[in-house]
Amino acid sequence: MHRFPAFLLNGYSNFMSGRYAREEERYRDLAKEGQSPTAMIIACCDSRAAPETIFDSGPGELFVLRNIANLVPTYQPDANLHGTSAAIEFAVKQLEIKDLIVMGHGRCGGIHAALNLDSAAIKQFDFVGNWVSLLNPVADQVNKNSWMTEGERRTALERISIRHSIGNLRTFPFIKALEDEGRLALHGAWFDISTGELWLMDPDTGDFDRPEI
Amino acid sequence: MHRFPAFLLNGYSNFMSGRYAREEERYRDLAKEGQSPTAMIIACCDSRAAPETIFDSGPGELFVLRNIANLVPTYQPDANLHGTSAAIEFAVKQLEIKDLIVMGHGRCGGIHAALNLDSAAIKQFDFVGNWVSLLNPVADQVNKNSWMTEGERRTALERISIRHSIGNLRTFPFIKALEDEGRLALHGAWFDISTGELWLMDPDTGDFDRPEI
Amino acid sequence: MHRFPAFLLNGYSNFMSGRYAREEERYRDLAKEGQSPTAMIIACCDSRAAPETIFDSGPGELFVLRNIANLVPTYQPDANLHGTSAAIEFAVKQLEIKDLIVMGHGRCGGIHAALNLDSAAIKQFDFVGNWVSLLNPVADQVNKNSWMTEGERRTALERISIRHSIGNLRTFPFIKALEDEGRLALHGAWFDISTGELWLMDPDTGDFDRPEI
Amino acid sequence: MHRFPAFLLNGYSNFMSGRYAREEERYRDLAKEGQSPTAMIIACCDSRAAPETIFDSGPGELFVLRNIANLVPTYQPDANLHGTSAAIEFAVKQLEIKDLIVMGHGRCGGIHAALNLDSAAIKQFDFVGNWVSLLNPVADQVNKNSWMTEGERRTALERISIRHSIGNLRTFPFIKALEDEGRLALHGAWFDISTGELWLMDPDTGDFDRPEI
Repeated sequence: MHRFPAFLLNGYSNFMSGRYAREEERYRDLAKEGQSPTAMIIACCDSRAAPETIFDSGPGELFVLRNIANLVPTYQPDANLHGTSAAIEFAVKQLEIKDLIVMGHGRCGGIHAALNLDSAAIKQFDFVGNWVSLLNPVADQVNKNSWMTEGERRTALERISIRHSIGNLRTFPFIKALEDEGRLALHGAWFDISTGELWLMDPDTGDFDRPEI
Repeated sequence: MHRFPAFLLNGYSNFMSGRYAREEERYRDLAKEGQSPTAMIIACCDSRAAPETIFDSGPGELFVLRNIANLVPTYQPDANLHGTSAAIEFAVKQLEIKDLIVMGHGRCGGIHAALNLDSAAIKQFDFVGNWVSLLNPVADQVNKNSWMTEGERRTALERISIRHSIGNLRTFPFIKALEDEGRLALHGAWFDISTGELWLMDPDTGDFDRPEI
Repeated sequence: MHRFPAFLLNGYSNFMSGRYAREEERYRDLAKEGQSPTAMIIACCDSRAAPETIFDSGPGELFVLRNIANLVPTYQPDANLHGTSAAIEFAVKQLEIKDLIVMGHGRCGGIHAALNLDSAAIKQFDFVGNWVSLLNPVADQVNKNSWMTEGERRTALERISIRHSIGNLRTFPFIKALEDEGRLALHGAWFDISTGELWLMDPDTGDFDRPEI
Repeated sequence: MHRFPAFLLNGYSNFMSGRYAREEERYRDLAKEGQSPTAMIIACCDSRAAPETIFDSGPGELFVLRNIANLVPTYQPDANLHGTSAAIEFAVKQLEIKDLIVMGHGRCGGIHAALNLDSAAIKQFDFVGNWVSLLNPVADQVNKNSWMTEGERRTALERISIRHSIGNLRTFPFIKALEDEGRLALHGAWFDISTGELWLMDPDTGDFDRPEI
């Protein structure tokens, strides 16, 4: 019989003797009263960019969706499975979060895939290429910049895709309505794994810049 | 212009002066060499059950997919968007992870929704009900237990859904093949928000029990 | 001539030099004045779940009925023998106990039998199957959960049967009346043999949870 | 909402820090491997005569049935509920115990009731009189001894009833057969609450005497 990974059990043991021991009451309260986070983050699955780590978040603070390349489709209320849309809907309608953040990051494998849909490597996948094709028109546009380096094209698409996802969020009627009423704010963020820098999207211009902290 | 949530900026500031400062080299190496996590966790979006917190994980350790109720569909290589399948495929084929963990948790709102698909509250959603209907036949079965309390039915489905997701993972040919060759192990885990307890699924019986740590 | 089991004589010798020696006066008083326990426990015959051990009880404290699977039938004042009903009636009417506890436990053989009435093993019994058929409709309901493991179905029925017995207790007019007047409280408890944990039933929801001690 | 009795929670706390802490491994093994007691005791519900206390027994040692006045009916394999017969059958057939002990005790309220069936006090019960009428012919016989004191009649019936129950046990075909083969031994015991004395029945003569310990 295979065993649960030992490094995870060790980590869990640290959690119990550390954070849980210190915050037991908070966990018990959160269990009893339910969660009421004020923010949702849509982030990438990447092992180097966990929102709770980057924002030093405690239990109950962040409702977190993670998928490949932190993508959001447009509003399509059909019979198909829409895991991402379901999570967003739950956060907005049920939890009534006030801030919805799309956070990308540097050296993203999903963005790399989106820029190389025709490669043999991507074509052998059943799902990855299809998923990141959500970025199709914009990825094509970026790819045409032959004067940009591969790295520059990737960083460009990482940021463009955040604006693209925020645009798609606005196709959801209930998001658009709440944003118009000033009851929900959409934010973009980009995390540089190497330097640890967090870049925030200017909601007016779409530019990314580092906040003063 | 709306501002990025202050509590997140404060948290980020803690991250920079804390973990990043202590592990700067690790972040720089992870950026340069790419991620190579050995484990993927499929977890819920719930703000109280972040895998990195529960397993006290550092950067680069866990590839994390989070959706409502940590669900996995069956293998359906069609033209639709399959964000969950894409993340799983990327982790298994590209990152060649060795351990794939489905982690559920107590008092899960998504599981609650799956057990109340006919309620007015769930019917007002465009996506949530559709997404958790992935559990339809098993949720129906659990709902027939009028002698179990609502809480017991929820806990039962939380655990059943983990086994259900693991069963669905085995419909992916590349997962089944690697598991048969002993190169990939599938695990189930369930986190009790209130007590902080982690229950692991026995791979032989499917029962959940607490590990000795 | 066969001899009385030596391990029991040794145990009795310990009792005399230990507890009895320390509490001789209490025993003499209890003999002279009669018993006046304030609580009755209906527990299982199982050798691993003795109420006096679990509650570290001294002489005179607990009136204890033990039968297979701690079952209570409904009120049936006919000419048949009702050993369980007689004990309950004696405790409530004669001893005027204030608390009546139904205590089940994990890995209960009687509950296992209730879930396997059609097995050859149970069919060879003259009385066991008939006795645990007290749980018939609820056991059937639990058995329909093919997605729950055998162990989960057993745990579910162990707890359901406690609520079921408490429901049956309320069919006794003298119990119902005293409970309504606030002079008798009905409690449910479940003992986990492996971990030693005691789970108590919430009288409002029926859920089982561990008390803070 | 009513609360679980505090004295029981205190006792449970003692159990956890005492016996369970010392014998955790034994409990875990008993949970994993199941119970295999070698002896069954049929005892009274009386709060002053707990078998585990009198025999200083640990977990897994004694399979214990407790009813009013430790009575055993004759073998009646009909459709009625026979809780006592079911427990005996389970112990003998399933657990294959080697020793079956019927233990009575002094100042037994059930025996007192059997001797006063016509009293107003007993007539107001729905079940108690019916249950102890199991002793009817012998109780009548004892009651005719007008020269014995009430206390003497009671003690006499306490011991007679033990022999009576042992006689009834022999009407169970599977018990008779095992006893004849020397694979099951039936014992009688009587506990004096006041002095703590244990009296054992001589299997040949039926007399009760104190063992040398």
